[in-house]
Amino acid sequence: MWCDRIVTTPRTIDLRSDTVTQPDETMRIAMSAAEVGDDVLDHDPTMRRLEEQVAGLVGMEAALWVPSGTMGNLIALVLHLRRGDRFLAARGSHVLESELGSAAWLAGGMPHPLEWSGGPGRISVEDVRSMASSSGPYYALRTRLLCLENTHNFAGGTVTQPDEHARLVAAAREAGLRVHLDGARLWNASVALGVPPAALAVGVDTVQVCLSKGLGAPVGSVLAGPSTLVAEGRRVRKMLGGGVRQGGVLAAAGILALERVDDLAVDHANAKSLADGLTELGWEVRRPETNIVLAPVPDAQVTLAMLAGVGVRAVAVPGGVRFVTHRDVPTADIGEALRRISAERPVRV
Amino acid sequence: MWCDRIVTTPRTIDLRSDTVTQPDETMRIAMSAAEVGDDVLDHDPTMRRLEEQVAGLVGMEAALWVPSGTMGNLIALVLHLRRGDRFLAARGSHVLESELGSAAWLAGGMPHPLEWSGGPGRISVEDVRSMASSSGPYYALRTRLLCLENTHNFAGGTVTQPDEHARLVAAAREAGLRVHLDGARLWNASVALGVPPAALAVGVDTVQVCLSKGLGAPVGSVLAGPSTLVAEGRRVRKMLGGGVRQGGVLAAAGILALERVDDLAVDHANAKSLADGLTELGWEVRRPETNIVLAPVPDAQVTLAMLAGVGVRAVAVPGGVRFVTHRDVPTADIGEALRRISAERPVRV
Amino acid sequence: MWCDRIVTTPRTIDLRSDTVTQPDETMRIAMSAAEVGDDVLDHDPTMRRLEEQVAGLVGMEAALWVPSGTMGNLIALVLHLRRGDRFLAARGSHVLESELGSAAWLAGGMPHPLEWSGGPGRISVEDVRSMASSSGPYYALRTRLLCLENTHNFAGGTVTQPDEHARLVAAAREAGLRVHLDGARLWNASVALGVPPAALAVGVDTVQVCLSKGLGAPVGSVLAGPSTLVAEGRRVRKMLGGGVRQGGVLAAAGILALERVDDLAVDHANAKSLADGLTELGWEVRRPETNIVLAPVPDAQVTLAMLAGVGVRAVAVPGGVRFVTHRDVPTADIGEALRRISAERPVRV
Amino acid sequence: MWCDRIVTTPRTIDLRSDTVTQPDETMRIAMSAAEVGDDVLDHDPTMRRLEEQVAGLVGMEAALWVPSGTMGNLIALVLHLRRGDRFLAARGSHVLESELGSAAWLAGGMPHPLEWSGGPGRISVEDVRSMASSSGPYYALRTRLLCLENTHNFAGGTVTQPDEHARLVAAAREAGLRVHLDGARLWNASVALGVPPAALAVGVDTVQVCLSKGLGAPVGSVLAGPSTLVAEGRRVRKMLGGGVRQGGVLAAAGILALERVDDLAVDHANAKSLADGLTELGWEVRRPETNIVLAPVPDAQVTLAMLAGVGVRAVAVPGGVRFVTHRDVPTADIGEALRRISAERPVRV
Repeated sequence: MWCDRIVTTPRTIDLRSDTVTQPDETMRIAMSAAEVGDDVLDHDPTMRRLEEQVAGLVGMEAALWVPSGTMGNLIALVLHLRRGDRFLAARGSHVLESELGSAAWLAGGMPHPLEWSGGPGRISVEDVRSMASSSGPYYALRTRLLCLENTHNFAGGTVTQPDEHARLVAAAREAGLRVHLDGARLWNASVALGVPPAALAVGVDTVQVCLSKGLGAPVGSVLAGPSTLVAEGRRVRKMLGGGVRQGGVLAAAGILALERVDDLAVDHANAKSLADGLTELGWEVRRPETNIVLAPVPDAQVTLAMLAGVGVRAVAVPGGVRFVTHRDVPTADIGEALRRISAERPVRV
Repeated sequence: MWCDRIVTTPRTIDLRSDTVTQPDETMRIAMSAAEVGDDVLDHDPTMRRLEEQVAGLVGMEAALWVPSGTMGNLIALVLHLRRGDRFLAARGSHVLESELGSAAWLAGGMPHPLEWSGGPGRISVEDVRSMASSSGPYYALRTRLLCLENTHNFAGGTVTQPDEHARLVAAAREAGLRVHLDGARLWNASVALGVPPAALAVGVDTVQVCLSKGLGAPVGSVLAGPSTLVAEGRRVRKMLGGGVRQGGVLAAAGILALERVDDLAVDHANAKSLADGLTELGWEVRRPETNIVLAPVPDAQVTLAMLAGVGVRAVAVPGGVRFVTHRDVPTADIGEALRRISAERPVRV
Repeated sequence: MWCDRIVTTPRTIDLRSDTVTQPDETMRIAMSAAEVGDDVLDHDPTMRRLEEQVAGLVGMEAALWVPSGTMGNLIALVLHLRRGDRFLAARGSHVLESELGSAAWLAGGMPHPLEWSGGPGRISVEDVRSMASSSGPYYALRTRLLCLENTHNFAGGTVTQPDEHARLVAAAREAGLRVHLDGARLWNASVALGVPPAALAVGVDTVQVCLSKGLGAPVGSVLAGPSTLVAEGRRVRKMLGGGVRQGGVLAAAGILALERVDDLAVDHANAKSLADGLTELGWEVRRPETNIVLAPVPDAQVTLAMLAGVGVRAVAVPGGVRFVTHRDVPTADIGEALRRISAERPVRV
Repeated sequence: MWCDRIVTTPRTIDLRSDTVTQPDETMRIAMSAAEVGDDVLDHDPTMRRLEEQVAGLVGMEAALWVPSGTMGNLIALVLHLRRGDRFLAARGSHVLESELGSAAWLAGGMPHPLEWSGGPGRISVEDVRSMASSSGPYYALRTRLLCLENTHNFAGGTVTQPDEHARLVAAAREAGLRVHLDGARLWNASVALGVPPAALAVGVDTVQVCLSKGLGAPVGSVLAGPSTLVAEGRRVRKMLGGGVRQGGVLAAAGILALERVDDLAVDHANAKSLADGLTELGWEVRRPETNIVLAPVPDAQVTLAMLAGVGVRAVAVPGGVRFVTHRDVPTADIGEALRRISAERPVRV
């Protein structure tokens, strides 16, 4: 009943993004105990440890901590692209939609979105080939890079399988393209498939993984790749203002976060429960592959307002409303969210 | 017979582009008689006359000569976009495909190709609206500009009608977008529709028209718009290195070229003859709306080689082979080209 | 005696920079207790508190946390400059020498170094006026910005007094320039002069202050200015990849750091002792105004090697060797450093 | 007498710049007779001839026509610099002062002006060495390029001798720098010294020479260098919008202009007469080395207004007023200009 709800002022269940996760007590203790140094001058020891660990996990020679996934992707684009080069990315990719055009403004790259010809977030080997074949005259646009995203956020956390990944990378390689993998949620793909992260980064030049989403670290991502590229990336990071001093306090959180990858399975189960529950309530919902539930709705703002009214938060994304499960939303809260939503009328496309 | 062909070494019929047109005797005399001045310091008098004439023709306050259509478009993008802004353009537009990524590298803009939902080269009002509605949070990509192209080159010289133009401009305006019109071949659209060029530039912020394509001037395009934008454009032109000294020699050719707009009707008739002839020969050919004939073929390089073998030149464009009729290919040569091609086997998709 | 030194392996006294300062126990506790939120989506509450506090301290409307002083300066340049604008800065300024050219590459600005006509780090009102008077024709370079630096690092931590600051700002204003103040060590200037920081930022458009140098926070600077500029700066920060999530853990350290400004007086006294001691040892040393001691030496690398040999670290800067006193070097260590150096031969210019 | 002057309305003697020179009858005929082609698609035959001729004259493998010296310099900077690289140039160089900051905005380069330690426009080998020695850590600004200018415009058309040129190039090379020579008026230096242009371009990577200044062509400069760099430069030229179609009409003027290099001796003699005459009239004037006469005056605008009053035009440059002699000012006009000026009071510093 409406009155009750007002009276109890229910705690908000925040399903907007896994970026809202907060460091817990253990992580805060690890941070406060971190051994630190001046990372610009000396390479902070905890930073270095984190970077080595992540490089190992994704099968790369070296790695570089960055304050955000956006900076990790931006540095990669800067390293791979020369003035005006075209790069390919699946429609709706983070580098296309959510980095405010820094790919063009700062990296000078000309994006070309590839269609989802193989289902949400899934591009085809044929499209990569067709757009990459740019052995044209001197006055022709050059295609230089393929950007993959696994899991693909705006497609609904969809997973690219190792074999499909391998085929895309091979097609890019044959066409002379470099490959960058935006693996902000590569951990989720790894857990969903039961394969190590490195299996999903085979053959790429660079990969960015995030520590502050589902893994719960407060700040930071890591860009990994060959040592020479990473060394040049360290320089680009300094140019962008992303070089920090005693970053070990953040790296310590990142190291702990890496121990929590397996916990993501709970988020995935919760996403499935949420999707099932919403379907039962009459919503049209895409089957979640990881921790993202995408619901196409006729008017995202109306739906978000309804949800806010019952203390559930989500966000609008291209094509609908997005719910993200994460470590700060326990399983019980999924049931509670569904109960609250059930009191409202279903929203149909 | 092949031997004959070798013996006669037939004159090449060059249908690659209307950019190959050469200044004729009259135009050369006009150039050599041009009154000139230092256009950087003083504004060359013939340049000024050309700029005023073009501004009048396209219904704008002011105009600026530029060495190429690419520079005209680039200056427009620089004037309209701020760091990382998204701009919309029909798939295959010149600003997307044929300017080597300067839209991103130099203007810092993030291109977004719109589908041809209304036929070749024709975008929909709905897509403009949907991509333009970017009243998002501070961390969202901003859409700032709609780039139109009339006629649309890679779609096959397709024409946007005044009413469709008006609807697209209105949709952009309502969404707070600026509008730039790449009118490199706006003269062709004007002649094909029998309306003045200004009727096809209604409501746009800037328009670029070319003097060195179908009109036959050796060098130059003109960017037109409001006086304040054009003044700032003059500055940007200087930055890019496009400010020239005694440009009057080129402007004189441009002024003469403007008198030849009506001649384009001949090119259009020739394109129709060529398309009809190719169809009779079994080719699959798009019905030309202006001076461009687009033939989808399975392998453009194979077709171009066959054509070159009989002394006919065309170019590969996305999706096939392109023939462009122009003032240096008289009507008789169209028949001759068809005769030569007929000796070869048809090329089917 | 050399053997003794080997045996005792003396703890290194690190005078390279105040950036090497590490968070102490109290600061680590504050960090681990920080209230946090997703600063990109919601504005982290501790971040907000820090930003408001700094804005108040420097007399500005609003402020923005950034991961580094380099990013703070870069965002300011991006906000103030348009394509190719000239900006003025004292020779040796951090924006000129120590930000890897991002002023040009990313902000598109054309730097012009002003001579130290009034002593180390001190520029003249006349030079500002003469370079700023750019009311030229459309094809002339535009001067748009004056960048001040107080204290001036590479000049030896020199302080600009409020009246001199006011004269420079007034000259810039009269010439239509904007003013940015790189106040990475503004706290030191404030303590040295006994005036509040705001008195040293009067009339500027933006000011950047650093929390991770003498104040000892592990990571972070703050850019302050008018609300509208800061809002746009928040957007630019996101573009650069400087937007972080639960930044409150770092902001908590920053808030505590602000309570420690007065401690800088100790560093200043230590710098004076060090300079006096070195002078007694026969070094030529500039009289320190704050926490930086600059010693012109014939060959910086030779001197640094000698120092390293006795467990004292400094850095090479244009014109010599730089020692920086800071909170992690207690007063006793200054004496110890001098004792160690005295065992070596003096290094003369 | 003032009234007389009004009555006779004397023809203006335009000494603002040698850029005001106009193509004469012979040049116009050459232009109108030029063999042309589509230079973007095919390489215009007259363009190609001009480029080969210039490459030969300056001792380079290949060359590229550009619409302006500004674009020639800009392309060179784009080719030589990577993001944020520092480049060195004598104070007052054209790339620093007269290209609207495109060196920073478009080429992403960080300029560093070198002092005129060896007299007007003359930099020292020591300064090149000292600024170039940037074998610093990863977070240090990189110096990549030395830009020479011969003759140096704003220093008063001063000439760098072959031996001094060789020393500067050698110093740059030893320090790992590339070298670009802005030779907009290299022809003047060549004539003044009686050495071939190639002798003044020995050892540089790229050199830009201008056809539209003293040589009298209406439009165009040429950038010369190694074939691979020039090929990449052709691509950059297209990006900037500097690729033109039937450029042969302009190249024909350029080819004729090359035959007129020796005529510059007349301009040099005229400059000497003008300087001598002004000195006799009590002006303080720098001794001209080529075709530029620089007169330091207390207020350039006042002087220019006085000159305009008697039908003589000059321009303000940093440090005074500049007169440039050129082929459109016959020797008789120098005397006439002096007679007119003599009626006015001398202007003293």
